[in-house]
Amino acid sequence: MEKILGILGGMGPMATADLFTKITAMTKASCDNDHLRVLIDSNAKIPDRTNAILYGGESPLPYMLDSALRLESMGAQCLIMPCNTAHFYINELQKAVAVPFINMIEETAKAVPEGCRPALLATSGTIKTGLYSNALKKRGFDLIVPDESHHMLYMAAIHDIKGGRVPDRGSFLMLLKWLKQKGADTFILGCTEIPLAFQWLEIDEPYVDATMVLARSAITFCGKEIRE
Amino acid sequence: MEKILGILGGMGPMATADLFTKITAMTKASCDNDHLRVLIDSNAKIPDRTNAILYGGESPLPYMLDSALRLESMGAQCLIMPCNTAHFYINELQKAVAVPFINMIEETAKAVPEGCRPALLATSGTIKTGLYSNALKKRGFDLIVPDESHHMLYMAAIHDIKGGRVPDRGSFLMLLKWLKQKGADTFILGCTEIPLAFQWLEIDEPYVDATMVLARSAITFCGKEIRE
Repeated sequence: MEKILGILGGMGPMATADLFTKITAMTKASCDNDHLRVLIDSNAKIPDRTNAILYGGESPLPYMLDSALRLESMGAQCLIMPCNTAHFYINELQKAVAVPFINMIEETAKAVPEGCRPALLATSGTIKTGLYSNALKKRGFDLIVPDESHHMLYMAAIHDIKGGRVPDRGSFLMLLKWLKQKGADTFILGCTEIPLAFQWLEIDEPYVDATMVLARSAITFCGKEIRE
Repeated sequence: MEKILGILGGMGPMATADLFTKITAMTKASCDNDHLRVLIDSNAKIPDRTNAILYGGESPLPYMLDSALRLESMGAQCLIMPCNTAHFYINELQKAVAVPFINMIEETAKAVPEGCRPALLATSGTIKTGLYSNALKKRGFDLIVPDESHHMLYMAAIHDIKGGRVPDRGSFLMLLKWLKQKGADTFILGCTEIPLAFQWLEIDEPYVDATMVLARSAITFCGKEIRE
């Protein structure tokens, strides 16, 4: 029995569009009617998650609760959030609704190949809250994260993407090089904007794309097959 | 004052994702919060519009009414449909909701440059109901449409895209050549899947993309500016 998928989106809108495109492209379907029904609330007005978690900015939680409840009342039978940092609030959100959330971070941790040395590309909020390092530690991985100065290169790239600009290739490659020197051989794309940087800058390094993992999990959880 | 945009989607899902991506990319914004709030019901289960209009198949109208009412009750303040053929039902849908629909076909007709000779690429349903030819006649254009045999080439391409396959380039170029021989110098991409064919097959011909026109109209109607 197929489930209606709800997407608590807008964090940011382009990452939401990217996830929705991936879900559609990855579903095994030969016509429109073979696809899942998907409800999306792309609420771009949700306050910045990193700003709230690290710097005492306005909490996004009331907005996210409103969105989760709206999606549930619209008929969503399973919820996903294409924003890694937003997963800081997932337990509180899950308490507010009866339908299950699929946890993007746990699904991504499960998808990291055994024996590799993963490095995380994510916002300061995602890194400092230990969302990924905790999920990966449980699975026996020791996560490599950028130091403060190299993380600045990352945040500049993210702000470019959120503003619709292609990030600076040289700075981005410098960040990846530093992580590889620390021993990384696989990059976790732990922010929903980062797959766009890899695509736009044509980066050719092994990675685990959290958006792709989430799309795959959502499709199968909702009762459809993955296109081969 | 910004309006919340509602998208009555799923006809098909990839066209809905394409429209949502275009709206996000075309909005003048420097951060997430600068974007519009967008609610989407991508109901892939809506019965085929062409099949209902031309061959007595199940009517999509009850499904579309349900979707329009859901979006309105979720808070949408303006509705759009990324499916040209679905506009056959727009008057009945508009009667059922208090919020305004933006009519993709009328907006596209307004965007056709003066003095050109437009040809229509659209489903049989859109062509035979005269949605575009009527809207264009009011503006002084005499629309060129494919004959039955060349239209078959078009429908094959659309079914490929809806199934996630790249259409055959040779057949598609044969269709465009026939339309140019009939005098066409501009193609109206009057089906939400066709921009994907132009993009995937790298077709270099003058066109008016109804999805792009709709994205532009929706952004400005909802109170945002277009990115230059």
